Amino acid sequence: MKEKNSNPSRRKFIQQTAIASAGLLLVNPISIFSQTNKSKKMSTNIKSKGYAGNDEVGKLTAWNFERRAVGDNDILIDIKFSGICHSDIHMVKGHWGKQQYPLVPGHEIAGIVTAVGKNVTKFKVGDQAGVGAMVNSCMQCDSCKSSQEQHCETTGMVETYGMPEKSSPTGITQGGYANNIVVTEHFAIKIPATIKLKYAAPLLCAGITTYSPMMKMKFKKGDKIGVVGIGGLGHIAVKLAVSKGAKVFAFTTSASKVKDIKCFGAKEVIVVQSAEDLKPYKGKLDYMISTVPYAYEMSPYIDCVKPYGFFTQVGEPINGILEINNFNMTQNRVNFNGSLIGGIQETQEMMDYCAKNKIYPQVEVIKASEINEAWDKVVNKKAHYRFVIDATTF
Amino acid sequence: MKEKNSNPSRRKFIQQTAIASAGLLLVNPISIFSQTNKSKKMSTNIKSKGYAGNDEVGKLTAWNFERRAVGDNDILIDIKFSGICHSDIHMVKGHWGKQQYPLVPGHEIAGIVTAVGKNVTKFKVGDQAGVGAMVNSCMQCDSCKSSQEQHCETTGMVETYGMPEKSSPTGITQGGYANNIVVTEHFAIKIPATIKLKYAAPLLCAGITTYSPMMKMKFKKGDKIGVVGIGGLGHIAVKLAVSKGAKVFAFTTSASKVKDIKCFGAKEVIVVQSAEDLKPYKGKLDYMISTVPYAYEMSPYIDCVKPYGFFTQVGEPINGILEINNFNMTQNRVNFNGSLIGGIQETQEMMDYCAKNKIYPQVEVIKASEINEAWDKVVNKKAHYRFVIDATTF
Ligand SMILES: [Zn+2]
Ligand SMILES: [Zn+2]
Ligand SMILES: [Zn+2]
Ligand SMILES: [Zn+2]
Repeated sequence: MKEKNSNPSRRKFIQQTAIASAGLLLVNPISIFSQTNKSKKMSTNIKSKGYAGNDEVGKLTAWNFERRAVGDNDILIDIKFSGICHSDIHMVKGHWGKQQYPLVPGHEIAGIVTAVGKNVTKFKVGDQAGVGAMVNSCMQCDSCKSSQEQHCETTGMVETYGMPEKSSPTGITQGGYANNIVVTEHFAIKIPATIKLKYAAPLLCAGITTYSPMMKMKFKKGDKIGVVGIGGLGHIAVKLAVSKGAKVFAFTTSASKVKDIKCFGAKEVIVVQSAEDLKPYKGKLDYMISTVPYAYEMSPYIDCVKPYGFFTQVGEPINGILEINNFNMTQNRVNFNGSLIGGIQETQEMMDYCAKNKIYPQVEVIKASEINEAWDKVVNKKAHYRFVIDATTF
Repeated sequence: MKEKNSNPSRRKFIQQTAIASAGLLLVNPISIFSQTNKSKKMSTNIKSKGYAGNDEVGKLTAWNFERRAVGDNDILIDIKFSGICHSDIHMVKGHWGKQQYPLVPGHEIAGIVTAVGKNVTKFKVGDQAGVGAMVNSCMQCDSCKSSQEQHCETTGMVETYGMPEKSSPTGITQGGYANNIVVTEHFAIKIPATIKLKYAAPLLCAGITTYSPMMKMKFKKGDKIGVVGIGGLGHIAVKLAVSKGAKVFAFTTSASKVKDIKCFGAKEVIVVQSAEDLKPYKGKLDYMISTVPYAYEMSPYIDCVKPYGFFTQVGEPINGILEINNFNMTQNRVNFNGSLIGGIQETQEMMDYCAKNKIYPQVEVIKASEINEAWDKVVNKKAHYRFVIDATTF
């Protein structure tokens, strides 16, 4: 942080490179440059323009801030699109604990690499790159070594925003509602050239969060998979499960979404107004995943899974607290579990799978100035199905 | 119910038979008798003396009532010992829903067969027999056919007490805090002659409730099994797991129980005063079973299980409601489930296993007049470890 305002020429250089980088697919000037001038040139903080929350009210405003300088193992990404995840709202509003403000949310980040540190091998300037919900971990523990970085056993994973981080000029990590980000290359995902960045962005949280637990289930073609809550995460879960050959049962409270969800490939869409609507599905599904990000009456949903099957809750309610009824659990004999994003290797696998199989989120691109309105729509279940911010508008 | 007071001579006969029955291991006078005189003689209700709850205050008082007559598929058991399960307290006090009173609790019933219906083949007069937490089910559905009667898909299982039942003179099933019970032979368990009835009684709920989920885990010798709550259920869980070769970690809030629990064979006894005490065990256990019959802070316990392991909650809190923290669940990756007693076949297997391997509950035999005091001790965690009522004192 002592070097915060040093070396404006370096900053200027990086900015110029960023502008030029879209065409620079084969050359890597920063990488070469940094090998000879690293101590001097790579030590300049990166200026960033974004939108930040300022308190628990959760109204975002434009904010200029700084990222850390691009380190030897870092890349600088010129963000093109940034997805709006319901977690952003929970985090900024303090639903999961107190936050430091200003806080730039956003952990569905897709853009173009515009600078790379001298040790970087995975990316070159001009590559499409993405960042999801984590930006660091210890890299030493068994979990990290087996690419389960999200379960780092020492430091825990460093989340993309709102986590204390010495290297960050603001003292905390700052997320993707901004025009750029600096990240350790290990925690960046390669986005194949065949998938558009606006589609890639939501995959980095909504995609991997549903992909990871579903793939662990190793379901067979024709297995009946239930998806509860068809928003940003749920609609991708439907598409992923369909692409793997499952018969998908989609549970939504929004009758207006039925047609869309059928188009995503769901075999059946159940509009749930009360627990009664779930009774016909009792004990019928092989597996169920719930993306509902609030506490809700879980039992009648869990009851839909066959005895000894699994139910995964990926939506995180306020303070994480859910009520479970053990009378139901003893009868339904379902195994309840939670799941948190996925490891970096798995995220890459998911990205490659989606690119190859053309599994694209249904996105609505908005301007930075429309973020607050979009947040209201997300809370009111009016998102169809993922808002993605055009980062050129920051 | 119209025949409630008919045919006193028949009643007298049964009572006499009951008195004589301890020595009648080979002859079966009632069975022969009923085949020739069933319509007349088997239609007489059975007089029973027990202790009943009268309202949600939960103070039990002596009560004389009637059981249904011994039907063709029924046996009459002269109860010798009846265990006190925490469920009895929850049920009578209305913690799990409204009840009809007077209500005789008790579902850990062990005694001697004193009469059998004409179709009965599993028992003869003089046999040791037991009844656990269920006395009927449809016997037609897939669950019933596979001896998972506790999960009967049509009528649901009929619990031993407090469930509406047409055949019962009081309109509901009445439990085992009494001197006798009439039960369909299918739902009675054969108690080997090698195990004393006072030890057999608690196995019929506490034993099977812990045996069933633990055996599903198919744990290997040396696996680390955690048991939470070392009361009536927990202490049997410890003994069962030890007998199967597990390294048992027993978690209790009662420092006074440590020595006992070591004697039960636990490798380690952890006296838990706060969540801090659980931290050293984080992610260390292969499986965990909790017998705690109240809502409690589950997360630090669940965290003790290895990722992708299982945690079974068999203790049933008030109205079944437990709080689960999904932040923990996403990090610990543990599968949470519930479990309800076990099927009849499995209960028989457990009984035979315990008899053969001398797995005996640690019991304290009390008189009927001491029931209310015992209940207070159970609630205040002062039971060491199962109160068993001497049914001759009713
Ligand atoms: Zn997210
Ligand atoms: Zn680590
Ligand atoms: Zn019980
Ligand atoms: Zn049945």
